[in-house]
Amino acid sequence: MTKLRFTITMSLDGYVAGPGQSLEHPLGEGGEALHDWAFATRTFRAMHGQEGGETGIDDEHAASGSKNVGATIMGRKMFGPIRGDWGDGAWKGWWGDDPPFHTPVFVLTHHPRQPVELERGTTFFFVTEGIEAALVRAVDAAGERDVLVAGGASVAQQYLRAGLVDEWEIHVVPTLLGDGARLFDDLGDALAAYECASLVSSSAVAHYTYVRKDAA
Amino acid sequence: MTKLRFTITMSLDGYVAGPGQSLEHPLGEGGEALHDWAFATRTFRAMHGQEGGETGIDDEHAASGSKNVGATIMGRKMFGPIRGDWGDGAWKGWWGDDPPFHTPVFVLTHHPRQPVELERGTTFFFVTEGIEAALVRAVDAAGERDVLVAGGASVAQQYLRAGLVDEWEIHVVPTLLGDGARLFDDLGDALAAYECASLVSSSAVAHYTYVRKDAA
Repeated sequence: MTKLRFTITMSLDGYVAGPGQSLEHPLGEGGEALHDWAFATRTFRAMHGQEGGETGIDDEHAASGSKNVGATIMGRKMFGPIRGDWGDGAWKGWWGDDPPFHTPVFVLTHHPRQPVELERGTTFFFVTEGIEAALVRAVDAAGERDVLVAGGASVAQQYLRAGLVDEWEIHVVPTLLGDGARLFDDLGDALAAYECASLVSSSAVAHYTYVRKDAA
Repeated sequence: MTKLRFTITMSLDGYVAGPGQSLEHPLGEGGEALHDWAFATRTFRAMHGQEGGETGIDDEHAASGSKNVGATIMGRKMFGPIRGDWGDGAWKGWWGDDPPFHTPVFVLTHHPRQPVELERGTTFFFVTEGIEAALVRAVDAAGERDVLVAGGASVAQQYLRAGLVDEWEIHVVPTLLGDGARLFDDLGDALAAYECASLVSSSAVAHYTYVRKDAA
């Protein structure tokens, strides 16, 4: 059974990106610090073609986020800083020719665009029909595997509000951003459907995993 | 040197109390669940005259919050549900004749009231001159020991914004309240002065401790 999952890193003060996202600051001002814990892990370094890195609790949780993922969904702000139509089509995401997804990636946008095929299994498809249409396509592409909502906050919120998420994991780092994009905002009663399945931490980050109450 | 400290438990979604505080729900609807981890510890049970309880990481952090505290400051919503003037003066807090503070407690209020002396060292003083005046009185009362801001969110925020807090600890539980009082809201740049000194967790709660950067 394909599940819809998401995993995201949050500052202790509740932000999953800093303010003022731009070409220089894909995660907003100060937002890069959210991912220091992940950059330190062997799993993350391997995904980006680098050697070394830490093993242990954080590495296990960096690995579990991408394990068994057959398709990815993201918002257009996660894909890039461009707003409005796609212009000359030169923008192919933040990640160069070999993005770390290695699956079909469905980008939610109001502006149609032809797919962009990059290396090692990453192809970006642009979906203009909304989150449910994107999910149908992603589930179809994922086969036996799961669909991962990669971010950002507003896309994760939309899937949570719609009751479509099966499992989610939040990595809470001690970083204090002071401002930015909140994950836990305007969710109504959506969170009442979930319960914590696991909490573990290193000295760098605490990992909270949630599942549906009716699945536990 | 007397330090000003605070310690508070927060839900993963950022609330330190649920919505709709009332006589039946001192911590708002659902807010009692925030403190399940503390109720389970030996330290907390002993503070409330009960035997047994768990030892380990959570007990250490339940104990550190009240260690070396010579005076306590709280907001009037933490003291009770009464708004406006104090009426017949029958309200003596949520905690009965033997509150768990065992120090002078300075309650911030706009309405003057005579002190209320209860058992084993807890006396409530009512301060109408604002947070700095309350701090001066609390520091004086604390002697060599520290002053603890016991809550709630708005009082902790006021001391943070004023740059008066030396150390703070947040206990983040996996509980999801969905609504209520946020701690991390409207703080401006106040948090930029702090850095994380420690992160540890059990499977029930993660403990984040912060100190001033210039003190580390």
